[in-house]
Amino acid sequence: MDKNQKNLLHETNFDIFFAGHSIDCAIIGYNNEELNILVLKWEGENIWMLPGGFILKDEDMNVAALRILKERTGIDLAYLQQFFTFGNSDRRNIEEFLGSEEMKQIQHLPMFQFMKQRFITTGYFALVDMNKCVPTPDLLSEKCVWIPIKKVPNLIFDHNKIIDKALEQIRKDINYMPFGLSLLPKKFTMKDFQMLYESILDKELDRGNFQKKILKLGILERQEKQMLGGSHKAPYLYKFNEEKYQDLIKQGIGFYSG
Amino acid sequence: MDKNQKNLLHETNFDIFFAGHSIDCAIIGYNNEELNILVLKWEGENIWMLPGGFILKDEDMNVAALRILKERTGIDLAYLQQFFTFGNSDRRNIEEFLGSEEMKQIQHLPMFQFMKQRFITTGYFALVDMNKCVPTPDLLSEKCVWIPIKKVPNLIFDHNKIIDKALEQIRKDINYMPFGLSLLPKKFTMKDFQMLYESILDKELDRGNFQKKILKLGILERQEKQMLGGSHKAPYLYKFNEEKYQDLIKQGIGFYSG
Repeated sequence: MDKNQKNLLHETNFDIFFAGHSIDCAIIGYNNEELNILVLKWEGENIWMLPGGFILKDEDMNVAALRILKERTGIDLAYLQQFFTFGNSDRRNIEEFLGSEEMKQIQHLPMFQFMKQRFITTGYFALVDMNKCVPTPDLLSEKCVWIPIKKVPNLIFDHNKIIDKALEQIRKDINYMPFGLSLLPKKFTMKDFQMLYESILDKELDRGNFQKKILKLGILERQEKQMLGGSHKAPYLYKFNEEKYQDLIKQGIGFYSG
Repeated sequence: MDKNQKNLLHETNFDIFFAGHSIDCAIIGYNNEELNILVLKWEGENIWMLPGGFILKDEDMNVAALRILKERTGIDLAYLQQFFTFGNSDRRNIEEFLGSEEMKQIQHLPMFQFMKQRFITTGYFALVDMNKCVPTPDLLSEKCVWIPIKKVPNLIFDHNKIIDKALEQIRKDINYMPFGLSLLPKKFTMKDFQMLYESILDKELDRGNFQKKILKLGILERQEKQMLGGSHKAPYLYKFNEEKYQDLIKQGIGFYSG
């Protein structure tokens, strides 16, 4: 733990926070190839975690989630989706967190009394275009980086489970709402679109079947062909009809709303 | 507040509970006709509420939800589905709850110090066959009854919103999993099945389209015709193929898993 970090932890007045309930953010980024997750590395320790934090005593939980994400990563979103609350009594072992000698220095401080309590945590997620979200570590963190979801290291507490649950939720969501508007470039090929769905679902999809299902939704407008330098098999480009896309979000695309 | 209730409240040691986080249960019952919700009426007051309570200090939240439901309503379920956590700072105004003179008697007690704190609450729901769940009020409650969801009175705090959110979740769920196994009689007509879906979705469905979609799932086995006393238009009875039903729960029936 470096000096800045120590000062920050020592100077924070933990009395301003609502005890017992924390927030953790699973920010999932797409880069036209694969899903990534935003993680923080604790300064000077080999401890990785999701960006998380505490709720102010009079703060709505939804507001706290956006504030915490911004404070810890610099990323300022308009909306985060609550997906699950993790309430096992053994989910958070602070002794493990305080394993190193350095960390033990805080045991005598009032902040430790706050930190060592049981915390139930509510998970929030967002699925974002990775190229539009440049993370900045806060003073407690050495790094704030995107890591491919298939290469996530062991994270602190139950944070790996929190990521799994966020992915499970996104895979459910894809069954009743359209996806892609904020994740694909303005114009994209059917293959780009299919790759997004394959990344989310973590499985290959049949090309013909995908195209048929997606076109049936009526949210795409076919554009010119993609110029690929002489190929006569150039694929068509598409863009979203945003109005129809938003209508479909309200209406749903599921088994009974579709 | 009657004597039993007072004693119970006075004698409860609130130190055993985890502060700041409560649980509320939206138990939705189906009676082959319409959705109902299970509510409690506070003894001697015109205050209605969802069955809810507090988590023990070392108790997993999921375990607490089942215990609380059983203690408050006598209903012993094997599973409750977490659906949302309500974290607005103004969601629970204890002064409103303590409006009557009678209730003010508890203000000087240590339990009031516990009760008056901010609570974030996690909602759990179950969708059950109403005829198989007979509720019994606990000592704090005058009544524990099923009320048709369209006739729910004003409930305490944000409990009406909690019901709305539970219904929203069930309407989403119906898009990616089969419904009905524990809600319909062993043998049922296609009309019975359609009525269940119409009650959940709160809208009329096209008969032909419903039958086509449902049969395509491959979870129904056609039985003999229903005997209706001489009618030559007797409908077929169906029963679930439980194996295929369970397979479909794992596999999903949504836009991309179907």
